[in-house]
Amino acid sequence: MLAALLLLSAFATQAQNHEQNLRTIFDEALTKGQSYPMLEYLSLKIGHRLSGSPSAAAAVEYTRQQMESYGFDQVYLQEVMVPHWVRGQKEIGRIVNSKFGSQDVNVIALGNSVGTGPEGLLAEVIEVQSLEELEKLGKKNIEGKIVFFNRPMDPKHIHTGHAYGGAGDQRVKGPSEAAKYGAVGAINRSLTLAQNDTPHTGSLIYEEGVAQIPAVAISTVGADYLSRSIKANKAMKFYMETHCEMLPDVLSYNVIGELKGSELPNEYIVVGGHLDSWDVGDGSHDDGAGCVQAIEAVRIFKATGIRPKRTLRAVMFMNEENGLRGGNEYARVAKEKDEKHIAALESDSGGFTPRGFGIKSSEETLAKIQSWSSLLAPYDLRKIVKGYGGADINPLEDQGPALIGLMPDSQRYFDYHHTTDDTFDKVNKRELELGAASMAALIYLIDQEGL
Amino acid sequence: MLAALLLLSAFATQAQNHEQNLRTIFDEALTKGQSYPMLEYLSLKIGHRLSGSPSAAAAVEYTRQQMESYGFDQVYLQEVMVPHWVRGQKEIGRIVNSKFGSQDVNVIALGNSVGTGPEGLLAEVIEVQSLEELEKLGKKNIEGKIVFFNRPMDPKHIHTGHAYGGAGDQRVKGPSEAAKYGAVGAINRSLTLAQNDTPHTGSLIYEEGVAQIPAVAISTVGADYLSRSIKANKAMKFYMETHCEMLPDVLSYNVIGELKGSELPNEYIVVGGHLDSWDVGDGSHDDGAGCVQAIEAVRIFKATGIRPKRTLRAVMFMNEENGLRGGNEYARVAKEKDEKHIAALESDSGGFTPRGFGIKSSEETLAKIQSWSSLLAPYDLRKIVKGYGGADINPLEDQGPALIGLMPDSQRYFDYHHTTDDTFDKVNKRELELGAASMAALIYLIDQEGL
Repeated sequence: MLAALLLLSAFATQAQNHEQNLRTIFDEALTKGQSYPMLEYLSLKIGHRLSGSPSAAAAVEYTRQQMESYGFDQVYLQEVMVPHWVRGQKEIGRIVNSKFGSQDVNVIALGNSVGTGPEGLLAEVIEVQSLEELEKLGKKNIEGKIVFFNRPMDPKHIHTGHAYGGAGDQRVKGPSEAAKYGAVGAINRSLTLAQNDTPHTGSLIYEEGVAQIPAVAISTVGADYLSRSIKANKAMKFYMETHCEMLPDVLSYNVIGELKGSELPNEYIVVGGHLDSWDVGDGSHDDGAGCVQAIEAVRIFKATGIRPKRTLRAVMFMNEENGLRGGNEYARVAKEKDEKHIAALESDSGGFTPRGFGIKSSEETLAKIQSWSSLLAPYDLRKIVKGYGGADINPLEDQGPALIGLMPDSQRYFDYHHTTDDTFDKVNKRELELGAASMAALIYLIDQEGL
Repeated sequence: MLAALLLLSAFATQAQNHEQNLRTIFDEALTKGQSYPMLEYLSLKIGHRLSGSPSAAAAVEYTRQQMESYGFDQVYLQEVMVPHWVRGQKEIGRIVNSKFGSQDVNVIALGNSVGTGPEGLLAEVIEVQSLEELEKLGKKNIEGKIVFFNRPMDPKHIHTGHAYGGAGDQRVKGPSEAAKYGAVGAINRSLTLAQNDTPHTGSLIYEEGVAQIPAVAISTVGADYLSRSIKANKAMKFYMETHCEMLPDVLSYNVIGELKGSELPNEYIVVGGHLDSWDVGDGSHDDGAGCVQAIEAVRIFKATGIRPKRTLRAVMFMNEENGLRGGNEYARVAKEKDEKHIAALESDSGGFTPRGFGIKSSEETLAKIQSWSSLLAPYDLRKIVKGYGGADINPLEDQGPALIGLMPDSQRYFDYHHTTDDTFDKVNKRELELGAASMAALIYLIDQEGL
């Protein structure tokens, strides 16, 4: 009985200790936080940073120096060869010979797409709502045409990520699927719930052995206009001209900074984001925010003197957007070195107010993390649910760590995602800081309690 | 046993019914919602609408017509005399004779303040951090000077409303407290966590029998600069010139729209916001958002055919900002008519993503509302806590209804609050819609289940 009481009292003391440390973590982030000035540098001084670009190299060096400057125990680069896709000069999209006359519309080449070259591509357009529709239409209706994938994201989803997931196949797989039926090009309705004239890029994946056709995204307003134009005159044509191309792979790096664990230094907790961004806007939300939050989460331990038992690793993954080479390489090396990863936490859903965490793990691990709810609720982290960790940490799955995604409010993310509008002014300082503190808080609890 | 089983099955059916109706409510708001176009009209065609202004009258007429157009059972105006404060020509604030030279700084008169008139006011400045400090300094240090209240909002609060609450006494009571010690004017650090050069207005309340001194707010950047200037040269003076004045009261209105209850028409559920705004920006977040959400919440019932048992009332309260006359009059009339209000729900914290509800009620009522958590969680309404309802509904307190405040994410609210930056472009369509749907969802459950 006495033993039980002592144990109970030890638990209570421990919980109180956790409570105080979480408060310390949030206070540090909200009063002396470095995430916002770091993001300002990354976004405004370096700017967008597609894999293989000089600015991606600058981002590697900047984040390396920052982690050094904060006194992390070890900061190093992990080599990774990355694809080097370049957009070239600005795209042209033009509705030709429609009932409403000719009209230029805003388009943006999809990442990894081949270009049309200067001669451009002029063809009739056939609109579809799904990949399945292609089969029904068959070669006779599709051959020689541009396929226009126009299924919108479904606004009825509360979490916009689900709406994105429900429409994304058109962009990723659409061009190759269309090419199988003889299509000569693809136009994709931009993946956003916003109704405006800004097109959204993002990667396509060409299927091996299928003809590679050029593909562009059109804005939501443009998509509606194009759809009306086709209905009014089926003989209408579309002219697209893109100058993008895939160059040879380039040597780049994941950037890794560590705080050594005091008791279990060979157990690793990863906290990360991806350093590359699309080549428009400045990638502030996708995923500059995640990178600076990951660095900040580890910096907070150093600055507040909260000593981790296990080794904390901030990882800036390279090439999430069009290849995932960084995430794959990190996992490969971790396996090769037989490193024991107990958890990996990624922030790649924008720098908005955090609402909780999505967790991919065993039921027991999920339940254990959920058991910390009362410690996290004062910070309005109230959504701790089964979910997806993140693209860069997902390759670690077979090595067993809990894969966890920071879950910020999702409403504005796809307003900016992969566009010229993903810029620093769209990030609220406190929202960014709260995200960083939330990440630090969760890795603190994982470190202290184990998983 | 059979009876128990039947009862259990009736409960299950009812819960399923609720689940479906909540889904219907959110689908309506997210796919056919009217809150955003209503707010666009209110903000861009009518603009800011301080009590007593012609645009406040336009807002009364617009919201009346909108509720009529949606086929509410009854729409009517409730007379209320409101204060008529006018700002007059733009304020001047000037640091004079400082060590750094003279410098104009952005200031804005506090609402209800007397003006300096064209002759302006020139005096030395004494900086304080609290009302208590005034007593310590005493008349000998304060008399003839301008008191500069410079205690910042505390960034360590997670909910920014708490930070606002912790600093607001300086604005509301500061000028009269300072006047008791012979101060001739007051300058208030703007109530915001943002560090920029935009000053925030808001009302002061003059204490009866105390000399009324002119008061302005200075931006946070300006406040820091002024503080440094005083430290560098205590003999520095400040020149302020304001042209505001209080004119005679004006006849205005609360605007009320009803859907009649099918079973208990004499029980009322109020859903509201306040129609007046400060005379800068266009009052989109404070509180155009709340008004259009309240109308939308009731419209959703009408549009989806969900028939309420009790009478639902959308109320556009007039004069929250500088008098609360509308809220007081509404409560007075309700009491006079002996109307039974079971709940009142106000949205007056901005049109941001809803996170839950703050509830001022008995413990039993709070527990009952919390028992609906599993119905609300799919909409990410996960914070259902004891709290404050809202300024306009608070006067109903002694009549017994649950007073409930919609709780949107609070991080950006005080970036815009009471400034030229509170404009329509700061409102995200889906965030606004989700707030309206959340209000409809909660009044639906209250209507169906009672309180």
